[in-house]
Amino acid sequence: MLNFNFYSPTHFLFGKERENEAGKLVKEFGGTKVLIHYGGKSAIKSGLLDRVKKSLEQEKISYVLLGGVKPNPRDTLVYEGIKLCKQEGVDFVLAVGGGSVIDSAKAIAAGVVYEGDFWDFYEGKEITKALRVGTVLTIAAAGSEGSTSSVITKEDGMLKRGADGLAIIPAFSILNPELMTTLPAFQTASGASDIMAHVMERYFTHTKDVEITDRLCEAVLLTMIKEVPRALKDPNNYEARANIMWAGMVAHNNIVGVGRQQDWSSHAIEHELSALYDVAHGAGLAVIFPAWMTYVYKNNIDKFAQFAVRVWGCEMNFENPEATALEGIERIKQFFTSIGMPINFKELGAKEEDIPYMVKTMGLDNGKTCGSFVELKSEDVDKIYRLAL
Amino acid sequence: MLNFNFYSPTHFLFGKERENEAGKLVKEFGGTKVLIHYGGKSAIKSGLLDRVKKSLEQEKISYVLLGGVKPNPRDTLVYEGIKLCKQEGVDFVLAVGGGSVIDSAKAIAAGVVYEGDFWDFYEGKEITKALRVGTVLTIAAAGSEGSTSSVITKEDGMLKRGADGLAIIPAFSILNPELMTTLPAFQTASGASDIMAHVMERYFTHTKDVEITDRLCEAVLLTMIKEVPRALKDPNNYEARANIMWAGMVAHNNIVGVGRQQDWSSHAIEHELSALYDVAHGAGLAVIFPAWMTYVYKNNIDKFAQFAVRVWGCEMNFENPEATALEGIERIKQFFTSIGMPINFKELGAKEEDIPYMVKTMGLDNGKTCGSFVELKSEDVDKIYRLAL
Repeated sequence: MLNFNFYSPTHFLFGKERENEAGKLVKEFGGTKVLIHYGGKSAIKSGLLDRVKKSLEQEKISYVLLGGVKPNPRDTLVYEGIKLCKQEGVDFVLAVGGGSVIDSAKAIAAGVVYEGDFWDFYEGKEITKALRVGTVLTIAAAGSEGSTSSVITKEDGMLKRGADGLAIIPAFSILNPELMTTLPAFQTASGASDIMAHVMERYFTHTKDVEITDRLCEAVLLTMIKEVPRALKDPNNYEARANIMWAGMVAHNNIVGVGRQQDWSSHAIEHELSALYDVAHGAGLAVIFPAWMTYVYKNNIDKFAQFAVRVWGCEMNFENPEATALEGIERIKQFFTSIGMPINFKELGAKEEDIPYMVKTMGLDNGKTCGSFVELKSEDVDKIYRLAL
Repeated sequence: MLNFNFYSPTHFLFGKERENEAGKLVKEFGGTKVLIHYGGKSAIKSGLLDRVKKSLEQEKISYVLLGGVKPNPRDTLVYEGIKLCKQEGVDFVLAVGGGSVIDSAKAIAAGVVYEGDFWDFYEGKEITKALRVGTVLTIAAAGSEGSTSSVITKEDGMLKRGADGLAIIPAFSILNPELMTTLPAFQTASGASDIMAHVMERYFTHTKDVEITDRLCEAVLLTMIKEVPRALKDPNNYEARANIMWAGMVAHNNIVGVGRQQDWSSHAIEHELSALYDVAHGAGLAVIFPAWMTYVYKNNIDKFAQFAVRVWGCEMNFENPEATALEGIERIKQFFTSIGMPINFKELGAKEEDIPYMVKTMGLDNGKTCGSFVELKSEDVDKIYRLAL
């Protein structure tokens, strides 16, 4: 096990009707003028936005609204949000939505108190100062409700990049599984793929003797395998939604990933896909992750066999562990297919001829590599995209 | 799943040599005059105390020392610590030791800023204010390094009672598995029993649809089953110690227990044992937990069968689930025996004739009960003690 730090100071409020406590929490964290940041009309139609507004009004906290966050949230709206916050003297950003809304809120929160261009953070500068952010989560997926990271897409050139910093970890996150019952099947499944990918980016490692985090990773994956089909079969199943929603947080606040080298190349490779085609991140991951697995599994057949046996319940083939490893990869493909996810370029709507562009945009030149399980160069990424065709 | 809050704001620093960062952390949390609280001579002999002192000196932070914390830490030393802190103007309490030292440090930290008798907190008053506490953990067991609770024994009458409050959650906890390599086998195993008991107090519940926390509980137990025998076989095995040490935190900061009714009656029943005989808490739990299981399993055979199958790898007996449930109980007894733990009164050195006294001291009269899986009355506790004979 490697040395590590773990710090997850977000207040989580989980369960039915908890969004009504948003105002009380904003007040506790000293917010006096709030930006309520949200996505499309569903938050309005469902009455969620009204409930959140009411909870702020009850605490006599004023607010301004900024909607319109799209999946793969754009820099243009972030600039707009920063301008609005400065004009209005906003001191707290409340995200009401999924990972895209939260990531956009984090970018705004960091940008408001930064003299330069907020995009600097997405070019690698650490975020050390930001307005406090709170969240009312509506989609289990990104894990942004408990993480220090944010991913934004620069509209000019559709560059998708991540930023990181303890300053943007949510002060509080409200997770009410009821809010997920209206989620369409495709978004439910995309979110599930993202959650599973967050675990698998951590799971596949060469770090030895990490039984505790191995087992915790497997715990999240096993939960998803049980609960996602249940939520798809009956979207109103509160219990299935609840298990998925908490699994989404556990998958990404790093409790399952400490003390081990993590990979994250599938995320980087996928970002080019969702930026270029503006597809759901989770759907892109369902395409890329199995291709990455197929490309790298020979570097640690034991780990992939463990994945097959412990997560998918495959029988270990003691005479041929590689066969077991491959069975695990096959099983996750089948699972993604079973929940309605694409598992190749064709199903996703991506094009073979764009591969060279995506490989180039990743910027893996001059010896720069991506990932740690295998340090991938441009030619490796090219091959992984082609395995996903 | 039940509604819940989760908040675990401790900074964890995990790994080799991390105790050298204690001074830097105390400074970050504003400590200027520290009480270093510790147990016996092992912290001195090992050089740990010197390293901690040096790290404070490097930050020009002054300190006073108070050693002598015993297992089942006493109120008498807490009073001494409170007096010393007031005299010396201490503003930060640094615990260097195991759960007993940390619990004693928490009691002192709460008592220093309280006008009344600190024991009020152990009679049920919530701790809402305390000096900040930091820890350098030397024994994986109590989970006090990441918890809001503290257990102290009142010497007059040997009453063992717990207190709770967010104010006493450690600001930081340093977990260096190297410090555990000198731990004798019995203490290693007692700590392991305590960790497993923390998980099982949460695991056995009637709350339905808690797959995520079920799986997380099982993850910790599976880790212990693998790693504890390894640590006992080779006390210097850093990796086994590391897995156990982090499992001990995960077992008790409540990440594996949120959203479900928890029981905690085995802990309460055990406290009478370790108070009366001054035995190791973990050893007492190894005696009490299987007896409690035997007494209550019929109230939820499915859950006990799940425990047997998922944690112990038993084959499910579909024609007779009760047989599987009983096999799980048998397996944990065997495990405790295999790591050198007592599993009955005789092995622990407890006496049948003291049962009425212990039952009485628990104070379950006038309709008061203990636990939630089954709400135990005095006569139930009596029977559980007798099942442990």
